[in-house]
Amino acid sequence: MPQYNAEPLERLINNFSRLSGVGRKGATRMAYQVLAMDEKDAQEFASAILDVHTKIKRCPVCRNYTDKDLCPVCSSARRDSSVICIVESPRDVATFEKTREYKGMYHVLHGLISPLDGISAEQLTIKELLDRLKDDTVKEVIMATSPTIEGETTAMYISRLVKPLGIKVTRLAYGLPVGASLEYADEVTLYRALEGRTEI
Amino acid sequence: MPQYNAEPLERLINNFSRLSGVGRKGATRMAYQVLAMDEKDAQEFASAILDVHTKIKRCPVCRNYTDKDLCPVCSSARRDSSVICIVESPRDVATFEKTREYKGMYHVLHGLISPLDGISAEQLTIKELLDRLKDDTVKEVIMATSPTIEGETTAMYISRLVKPLGIKVTRLAYGLPVGASLEYADEVTLYRALEGRTEI
Repeated sequence: MPQYNAEPLERLINNFSRLSGVGRKGATRMAYQVLAMDEKDAQEFASAILDVHTKIKRCPVCRNYTDKDLCPVCSSARRDSSVICIVESPRDVATFEKTREYKGMYHVLHGLISPLDGISAEQLTIKELLDRLKDDTVKEVIMATSPTIEGETTAMYISRLVKPLGIKVTRLAYGLPVGASLEYADEVTLYRALEGRTEI
Repeated sequence: MPQYNAEPLERLINNFSRLSGVGRKGATRMAYQVLAMDEKDAQEFASAILDVHTKIKRCPVCRNYTDKDLCPVCSSARRDSSVICIVESPRDVATFEKTREYKGMYHVLHGLISPLDGISAEQLTIKELLDRLKDDTVKEVIMATSPTIEGETTAMYISRLVKPLGIKVTRLAYGLPVGASLEYADEVTLYRALEGRTEI
């Protein structure tokens, strides 16, 4: 198809399209909006993109993104350092924090073991996790990876390394999503919910 | 709600959220993706945003966005300069060009008359349109604004200015969208489709 957009516009559309979940149509709409912005706002947008790379790095303890020396969770005195919740990505930390229920620490893997995508255990922050477990502070490790094949594989892999250290390894509960109707639950979830039933 | 994201990340999320059609959740996903990009790719993204503003301006004839002195349509010798299609935005030009059927020229209004949004006729490129009609080249003006209140108002306003110049003013046909089932058509569209029926 011939190009009807000017080259710089096409280039911006391509940049937006590279974000997953953004199609060509959405990217075009976004690029035209950037073009219609005040120049000041466009400069702010561009500098926000650059700053996120220059100012944010990984917390040396939990590997979550932070713009401080230590992330807010790792530097807090009020968190329970005997529990570590292991998650795939920094976004998962934000999701857990929103529940306001969890008071322990985190460890961000930055991925899941996935041989099909060429991601092996060495590319995750598993070595850094094992380093954190050396000093006997941690009594429990909660595997909070997604209930997918990759998530389960990674959870199994890590639990095999952690259990021999005498640390309790737990997994998030499977079950029905709160608020969802039973009729939309798939059989596996339903079976897991039945298996994990609790007394009321 | 407390902030769980580092400040530079929060700032980028806010920038993405300002794009219409992008919610807080989508903006968060996009910002995390930018963070996970190579630094080189983030620099390219930021520079694409800046370039779109520095390199693209309005074509002095049709007011469409272009990075050339004249846009490709206005500079083409193969276009019919006796017809001008009047559209709300540069995106509409791209949409028309994709049909590959229209061979005339365009005029981009950069908005529609909308008293509620404080947009008056003076803020659109109507004066520039009238300048283009002075030399008798143009024989027909096609009003291709959306079939909304603002689109209709703008089309009526412009047609009242153009008709006295002895130029034919036409409007896009109303009717059923191709491929859509009759049962989903609203009554107004159906009435318009009936009214505009053609012999087969």
